[in-house]
Amino acid sequence: MTQTLYRNLEKSDQMIGRTQPPLELPYTGGGEIIHLPAPTSVTIPPIDLRDAIQHRESRRSYRKEPITIAELSFLLWCTQGVKKVTTGEYTFRTVPSAGARHAFETYVLVNNVEGITPGLYRYLAIENQLAEVNRERGIADSMFQACLYQQFVKENAVTVIWVAVPYRMTWRYSERGYRYLFLDAGHACQNLYLGAEAVGCGVCAIGAFDDEAMNQLLGIDGETQFCIYAATVGKMTHRK
Amino acid sequence: MTQTLYRNLEKSDQMIGRTQPPLELPYTGGGEIIHLPAPTSVTIPPIDLRDAIQHRESRRSYRKEPITIAELSFLLWCTQGVKKVTTGEYTFRTVPSAGARHAFETYVLVNNVEGITPGLYRYLAIENQLAEVNRERGIADSMFQACLYQQFVKENAVTVIWVAVPYRMTWRYSERGYRYLFLDAGHACQNLYLGAEAVGCGVCAIGAFDDEAMNQLLGIDGETQFCIYAATVGKMTHRK
Repeated sequence: MTQTLYRNLEKSDQMIGRTQPPLELPYTGGGEIIHLPAPTSVTIPPIDLRDAIQHRESRRSYRKEPITIAELSFLLWCTQGVKKVTTGEYTFRTVPSAGARHAFETYVLVNNVEGITPGLYRYLAIENQLAEVNRERGIADSMFQACLYQQFVKENAVTVIWVAVPYRMTWRYSERGYRYLFLDAGHACQNLYLGAEAVGCGVCAIGAFDDEAMNQLLGIDGETQFCIYAATVGKMTHRK
Repeated sequence: MTQTLYRNLEKSDQMIGRTQPPLELPYTGGGEIIHLPAPTSVTIPPIDLRDAIQHRESRRSYRKEPITIAELSFLLWCTQGVKKVTTGEYTFRTVPSAGARHAFETYVLVNNVEGITPGLYRYLAIENQLAEVNRERGIADSMFQACLYQQFVKENAVTVIWVAVPYRMTWRYSERGYRYLFLDAGHACQNLYLGAEAVGCGVCAIGAFDDEAMNQLLGIDGETQFCIYAATVGKMTHRK
């Protein structure tokens, strides 16, 4: 904490003139690319904001039923959807981010989505695509284990995993950027919770996971990229 | 970061049987107590969740116009509103919190709210009240300075300030609780952004502030309580 106090901050790389890192990590996997339907084009039942806020709670029990690709597109849009890319500098998204850094890559573990082969994908927010990362049999079990054997991680439609790319934030904000990463992950997760209410889904955020197992499963090093937060999504068992 | 890795965690006080801290810090100030209208009783224009998410952006320029006490009650409810208190153990709120710890006290710097004397108040979430903390002339200027002289901190209707009470979280989660505090503050702030859209207000989150100046102004020690996040609110200058 002390390192991140405002008065203790070192000059950031931005201040000393270094070039900013890219807005999104390139996808170099060579796997399947799934074009998601434009989130603004899909039909989503209207829900009053206040009802969504009132009704939201953490839900760990889901119907064994798939979500549609349209619903997935909408939910991912809620969490990180790109509304505008300015010339090489910023993305403006559906959530706020300190200095519009948006220092996340979003992963999706698909268990039960109509028309998508189960497996681990990365959401390319700027392109509105899902890119295959790992479809090995057993990847869902690895996620279940990394999430400390919480049963609802297996019995959901998808698990959304937010990976922080800290340099994208610390480039501008130095050590204090680590605070902002966690604040930003909270913004994204809250929108997932609320968006889920619109499509009859429930969400449960997951902050407790085996960091090393999770990072290994995602194929990241835990330093230049690390798993910061996750959440399960599935169809609600009932409506109040 | 290393201290907060799952495998490095020490046993928490909960694990060794210590009593949990109170759900809310008592108010002992002896100042004015303002009873807020019940957030479920106030009239709030409906807004589709998707429109709120689409329209939201960080807004630093506000109309010089008050917000109503009903709007303030609604906005505070969005961020930390208590839906249920179980027998001494938990609060369930409008936002998720790791283990339902809800380790925040919310402060409000009132600059321009109908019927409320300007000054610093604490939101007593369980009671749905505002409790006077400091109405000295100059408190708004101190806030402006603590927020690094950002002009919109002066020219807003209110500034909402989230104060973390870390032991309420680390009692259960040990060191890792610090992560959850920041994630939780993100949840609260996102709901403020969206709630503001319903009442024609704009919000700008503030993560950069002089920690010592802010804590001093709030009358907290920076250790057992520290300012974790803040956001300004004011009437929007225009609607798109």
